[in-house]
Amino acid sequence: MHVVYPGSFDPLHNGHFDVIQRASRHFAKVTVAVLENPSKRGLWLFTPLERVEIIRRAVASARLSNVEVDTFHGLLAEYMKQIGSRVIVKGLRAVSDYENELQMAHLNRQYGNHPETFFIMAATRWSFVSSTMVKEIARYGGDVSKLVPPATAEALREKLSSVEK
Amino acid sequence: MHVVYPGSFDPLHNGHFDVIQRASRHFAKVTVAVLENPSKRGLWLFTPLERVEIIRRAVASARLSNVEVDTFHGLLAEYMKQIGSRVIVKGLRAVSDYENELQMAHLNRQYGNHPETFFIMAATRWSFVSSTMVKEIARYGGDVSKLVPPATAEALREKLSSVEK
Amino acid sequence: MHVVYPGSFDPLHNGHFDVIQRASRHFAKVTVAVLENPSKRGLWLFTPLERVEIIRRAVASARLSNVEVDTFHGLLAEYMKQIGSRVIVKGLRAVSDYENELQMAHLNRQYGNHPETFFIMAATRWSFVSSTMVKEIARYGGDVSKLVPPATAEALREKLSSVEK
Amino acid sequence: MHVVYPGSFDPLHNGHFDVIQRASRHFAKVTVAVLENPSKRGLWLFTPLERVEIIRRAVASARLSNVEVDTFHGLLAEYMKQIGSRVIVKGLRAVSDYENELQMAHLNRQYGNHPETFFIMAATRWSFVSSTMVKEIARYGGDVSKLVPPATAEALREKLSSVEK
Amino acid sequence: MHVVYPGSFDPLHNGHFDVIQRASRHFAKVTVAVLENPSKRGLWLFTPLERVEIIRRAVASARLSNVEVDTFHGLLAEYMKQIGSRVIVKGLRAVSDYENELQMAHLNRQYGNHPETFFIMAATRWSFVSSTMVKEIARYGGDVSKLVPPATAEALREKLSSVEK
Amino acid sequence: MHVVYPGSFDPLHNGHFDVIQRASRHFAKVTVAVLENPSKRGLWLFTPLERVEIIRRAVASARLSNVEVDTFHGLLAEYMKQIGSRVIVKGLRAVSDYENELQMAHLNRQYGNHPETFFIMAATRWSFVSSTMVKEIARYGGDVSKLVPPATAEALREKLSSVEK
Repeated sequence: MHVVYPGSFDPLHNGHFDVIQRASRHFAKVTVAVLENPSKRGLWLFTPLERVEIIRRAVASARLSNVEVDTFHGLLAEYMKQIGSRVIVKGLRAVSDYENELQMAHLNRQYGNHPETFFIMAATRWSFVSSTMVKEIARYGGDVSKLVPPATAEALREKLSSVEK
Repeated sequence: MHVVYPGSFDPLHNGHFDVIQRASRHFAKVTVAVLENPSKRGLWLFTPLERVEIIRRAVASARLSNVEVDTFHGLLAEYMKQIGSRVIVKGLRAVSDYENELQMAHLNRQYGNHPETFFIMAATRWSFVSSTMVKEIARYGGDVSKLVPPATAEALREKLSSVEK
Repeated sequence: MHVVYPGSFDPLHNGHFDVIQRASRHFAKVTVAVLENPSKRGLWLFTPLERVEIIRRAVASARLSNVEVDTFHGLLAEYMKQIGSRVIVKGLRAVSDYENELQMAHLNRQYGNHPETFFIMAATRWSFVSSTMVKEIARYGGDVSKLVPPATAEALREKLSSVEK
Repeated sequence: MHVVYPGSFDPLHNGHFDVIQRASRHFAKVTVAVLENPSKRGLWLFTPLERVEIIRRAVASARLSNVEVDTFHGLLAEYMKQIGSRVIVKGLRAVSDYENELQMAHLNRQYGNHPETFFIMAATRWSFVSSTMVKEIARYGGDVSKLVPPATAEALREKLSSVEK
Repeated sequence: MHVVYPGSFDPLHNGHFDVIQRASRHFAKVTVAVLENPSKRGLWLFTPLERVEIIRRAVASARLSNVEVDTFHGLLAEYMKQIGSRVIVKGLRAVSDYENELQMAHLNRQYGNHPETFFIMAATRWSFVSSTMVKEIARYGGDVSKLVPPATAEALREKLSSVEK
Repeated sequence: MHVVYPGSFDPLHNGHFDVIQRASRHFAKVTVAVLENPSKRGLWLFTPLERVEIIRRAVASARLSNVEVDTFHGLLAEYMKQIGSRVIVKGLRAVSDYENELQMAHLNRQYGNHPETFFIMAATRWSFVSSTMVKEIARYGGDVSKLVPPATAEALREKLSSVEK
């Protein structure tokens, strides 16, 4: 089965990466699909291509040979139709996530080739990590190395030092 | 009983319209009240008057003769006092909605003539529809005709084609 | 409009009574309908008729002349069809309530004359009261007079003193 | 991939059956595993074998050739190890479900061959159906044919007529 | 400050014990108060005194010299008045817990010397553990040593072997 | 014990103030810490210093001699290390709050001197009040005197009259 794991990944954190590793174990092929959202570009720290690069490095370090990384824009269901996948994988965490994810999953079913969503859970120790928090901690000089893969930590250091100059 | 169904309706979708139809069946008069919110105007797709027009067309198509459409600004409870209504009708869907709606309902009770809020549920098949999603799908050229009344679908086509030109 | 407020009411507490008073203000007629549930009888403190009697006294004290009290068994939607009502009134409180009430409301719509459910909120100061807690406090000799109408407090005193003898 | 869909299924309803059909479409083999729970036997309407029989009939009617039905007792993770499956499929519905299902999924990961849980969603139109409600409606003579597969409706008729005799 | 950590503790698990250790670090004195609930005695695995004994052993092993273990019955707020404590400590985990705990906390404030409740969180890795699950796993011969302190594991072994004889 | 009550407080409302008063009763010293968040400055009504001033006046009116008011920026856990406090106090209200607060609490534990978070509840009568709502009501000329301390009401009058000139 070829599954798609879509998201913003700005940037990849350990909760995301745990989902990627679990999906990699159970499915023949996993495409991590980074959403290009032009309308909110100003709020992002990393460009979609930078985010893809971070994920690729993390995936390579863990030798997950069945994981690909791509970008998409527009409707997820249409993108999935193009690449021939019918299953979305999403991580589940908090209740607020859950409600929103449920809405998205029901909606996605209406379009393209009617993809199904499989929700899986990251390990409980990542249940409090979010990209927003990671960026906030990094901006204040906090150590994020326990929250993100090394590829993300490095990219944050480069990005934030270049921003400050 | 004269009830008010307030909201942003940017634009009207089938979940909203289902609530309007249900309210129309049970109450003598229903005023759909579109909130004019000047501080966030930039984020809206339709002007308040365009939104009113969409709702009026949908209501006319369904021959709901006891439904009126209006705009309001400021405190809902004050608006209701002016038009002589003491009951707010709201649709309920997700848990996140629910918490927020509860807060609003308790707050509204403190003002004007202390309006009560009656929550009703749209049919389960609309439980995943939101105006935000409808706009996003339409912007990417997706078909929203299963999610919104014809009046909304038509207005989206016009608005988005004019935006692109 | 004739509405039905169904429940176990074992016994009536101030959260219930607040809903009754609010409903009485907005609807022409309110029937408080006590569920007779033979399969769980052993768990109840009061018989359905005792519960009806408590509610009648509380309603009489507050001079709510448009409120009637009745019992029902079987499907609520069928009972409502018999008495000619098409609207259920329920109080909303916690999230766990909410999920369950939503399920019930969607289900009730499938039967009888397809009754609609209007959810209203009791005042926030009763949001922590439940019949189970009231009974537990009363059993341990705690004072429940701030949590229930006088009719309930009196009935609890009688019932619990007779149980102990 | 060989997945297990565990549950009580007392009895199978349309929400369950929708999950079975979706799983059947995406996975090579689906084992529906009915939990034998001796400690609560008195509360069940159907015996585990009767429940298996209902599911088998529904699965046969829909010609789902890759679906098997079995019973299990003890720890789910141990059962899965025995039959060589590493993925649990569960349906998601309400928030209260969700919290509990999350706990179960994290727990199951600790045992046997550390099975992963994939959560999928039944269609929104079944989101209000539960086995408990189905039984209650059937007991009061209500029509459950819109809520359950024909095999369940028939089994309920037989069971409840034999109980009454 | 002298705080009370009330609960059923049937039996103590690592989530409970994490709360005890955290409370012990921040407060001068912690009383773990095991609820004696005669009305549900049949459902418990351990007697209140056995549960006290398990907690005492776990507390002794961790050398938490400011933690005492006691039993209480009746209203918690009255018990707290007797022992001169005004603060309840509770662990928080799932949303369903949360709603119920909030109700209890608001209620407790109405009685005795109006105790305040401080909610603290166990480490995320215990967020999926419950006493019910621990007992179920132990009954089926599963290994619970990662979920409970050694004192609980030992007591479960003794209890369950004696039950089987 | 020296505790920190962090927040935006833009502006202080009765729910916040209830938490401050409760904390003041139970802890030796309470520091109310106003977050300076430069990145979102445009969205605030009051400057951090104005917010501090409002809280100081409210605290002085209630003669809470063990409460100090301060500002901080960066990571809360680092600020707490600097001032030598190891306990965060937060108010709990809605489920959506709760999820987010839990994430923050788990995260804060990873930094500085690993502060613990104690959640306490404001009185139910403030459960519907939020700073956002207070500002919106005040902007439309509504009376907020039942929702905020006098110091806030006065500051809102001054701020909003100066904005309009």
